[in-house]
Amino acid sequence: MSSEESLKRLYQIAEDIYEDLVRGEIPKMKLAARNRSNIVFNTRYGVWKYGDSKITRSAKKLDGAYMLLRTLYVMEFIKEMIRDKKSSTLREMYYISEGWGLAKFHTQDESNKLAEDLEVITGYLREDFKLRPEEDGASVIGNITVEEINRKGKPMRINCRDDVGDSGYLIPYNVEKEKLKFVDVDADFVIGIETGGMFDRLVENGFDEKARAILVHIKGQPARSTRRLLKRMNEELGLPVVIFTDGDPWSFRIFASIAYGAIKTAHISEYLATPTAEFVGITASDILNYDLPTDKLNDRDIAALQSELKDPRFQTPFWTEEIKLMLKIKKKAEQQSLAKYGLDYVTDTYLPEKLTELGVMS
Amino acid sequence: MSSEESLKRLYQIAEDIYEDLVRGEIPKMKLAARNRSNIVFNTRYGVWKYGDSKITRSAKKLDGAYMLLRTLYVMEFIKEMIRDKKSSTLREMYYISEGWGLAKFHTQDESNKLAEDLEVITGYLREDFKLRPEEDGASVIGNITVEEINRKGKPMRINCRDDVGDSGYLIPYNVEKEKLKFVDVDADFVIGIETGGMFDRLVENGFDEKARAILVHIKGQPARSTRRLLKRMNEELGLPVVIFTDGDPWSFRIFASIAYGAIKTAHISEYLATPTAEFVGITASDILNYDLPTDKLNDRDIAALQSELKDPRFQTPFWTEEIKLMLKIKKKAEQQSLAKYGLDYVTDTYLPEKLTELGVMS
Repeated sequence: MSSEESLKRLYQIAEDIYEDLVRGEIPKMKLAARNRSNIVFNTRYGVWKYGDSKITRSAKKLDGAYMLLRTLYVMEFIKEMIRDKKSSTLREMYYISEGWGLAKFHTQDESNKLAEDLEVITGYLREDFKLRPEEDGASVIGNITVEEINRKGKPMRINCRDDVGDSGYLIPYNVEKEKLKFVDVDADFVIGIETGGMFDRLVENGFDEKARAILVHIKGQPARSTRRLLKRMNEELGLPVVIFTDGDPWSFRIFASIAYGAIKTAHISEYLATPTAEFVGITASDILNYDLPTDKLNDRDIAALQSELKDPRFQTPFWTEEIKLMLKIKKKAEQQSLAKYGLDYVTDTYLPEKLTELGVMS
Repeated sequence: MSSEESLKRLYQIAEDIYEDLVRGEIPKMKLAARNRSNIVFNTRYGVWKYGDSKITRSAKKLDGAYMLLRTLYVMEFIKEMIRDKKSSTLREMYYISEGWGLAKFHTQDESNKLAEDLEVITGYLREDFKLRPEEDGASVIGNITVEEINRKGKPMRINCRDDVGDSGYLIPYNVEKEKLKFVDVDADFVIGIETGGMFDRLVENGFDEKARAILVHIKGQPARSTRRLLKRMNEELGLPVVIFTDGDPWSFRIFASIAYGAIKTAHISEYLATPTAEFVGITASDILNYDLPTDKLNDRDIAALQSELKDPRFQTPFWTEEIKLMLKIKKKAEQQSLAKYGLDYVTDTYLPEKLTELGVMS
């Protein structure tokens, strides 16, 4: 999707407000309700999306009027950025609103939410609107050649095994096709890795070459660009995606957001989620089978696991069994705890066993 | 410093313990006391280092005996890694100790501290011992060509402007000369930038080319590798280093750790600190002069500023005035708050003004 097209869609919002005013009606905007009760499974994409429940922002009330005013200022700002080939962090937009008089944002939460509202209304991504997050994207190591259009508009070819340092290729915040193309790949699957320590371990042990894998450091709860990259690799390159995390409720959520979508971004789940992604641990069964060093679950962990038992994304036999088992043994484990058996155990034993079981390695 | 040499120094520790035993004495290790009261200014290097106060770890008491046992296991582990050309995260070492019987670490704090103890005793860096942190190093954008010896032992030349994507070159955890060489540079100074949003702003605005600068994203409290890289660029390339952070007590500490050394790493300040580094804001004066959007100081901020007034590293007229002014106006500001005046203000106005004042730009 191009910025030019997204701009046309923004004009449509302004036109609707204008027409409301011409007709003598109070201007308003309609958008999907963004809460847990309005999340439904979309069978076409195999991901969780917002349902039909809508809310209306009307200028009838003062708060609604402010929101519409802010929306118009934000659209003007986006138009200028697209014209000037600029982009802005969400934080910068918040500060820029200092000059917008009554439309000034009072917290960054307000401005972030408005950026998401525009996505919900238009069906375009925040990145199309030149708004970007602060967080870093993933780094990638493996035999894949990408072409990134750099800030000067020039295409730059980078092989993520041969043309990068040990830290890998750092993906840009915008990984859409007009910014990042896949040129060539020679690998059997993609493995997303939660922690930097484990990513470095797989790199040092040459797991990308031995197992013909593309290693992606997802850095905890992954940025949108990371989830989008995994999705594109899966869909366009036909590569299976597996996710390797710590064994605790928070890591299970990381997996769910990659595979099925996150509640905050459910309006764009079909762009971000990889429904065929598989989990390679650490699970509660792994803790027992591999006799891993553990920590005790704390109260927050237990509450998170119990909430996951009710979360629609975890309603599979695999997840309900593993979550119940973790609640039973009351223990969690980090992926690096596999080092108990030495630095090579994870690449020589653990991952080959898990990946063979899933049919990803043979 | 090479790993082979550092290994010899480790053998020395083992020999000392052996000799103690042969002479029928209780084995012991002596090392510098690592606390705030044992920090003294080293005039030769212009940085803060540990003083002469020593502590002794003796096997006379059970805790001391455990520490010596652990030290011997750790040295054995380091020897094996150097032999096998491996490295390990501090976290992995913690888990590996599961197999060390009585020498098992009980918390990661214990194993991290022992790694630092070995540095204090031997004068070598943890990186020489193949132990590395989890945290990411800096990313770099600018006209500098480096040669990194990659994991296969091959040298790889990377120009940090032309051969990288918009996210820049991600430095490895070990930036010593045997791993990373500077091949060529065409720039007037180095600017370390605290936040990702501001780093991206300077990249998008082409500040590296316009101002002939090397941009380094220091990512909050900088990793050792980042501080070492800044030091090497300053010393070997003769480039002035300036630091651009948020305007709050925590950012002042980031600057102090880069310029004068951190208390935790005072034994290696001469490797890590860049005493000639200059601060380009945000200061309390900037908040007033540029009329920046601010947040109120909270109680923790105020306590941190008051503690900085007593910190030997801040005993300069510049810092005592700025800290007192911040306590007076009771306000802090983020570097991105400069966006109040538009996305180009920081590169067209703020930084040129500050850098001209310092004589770094003309």
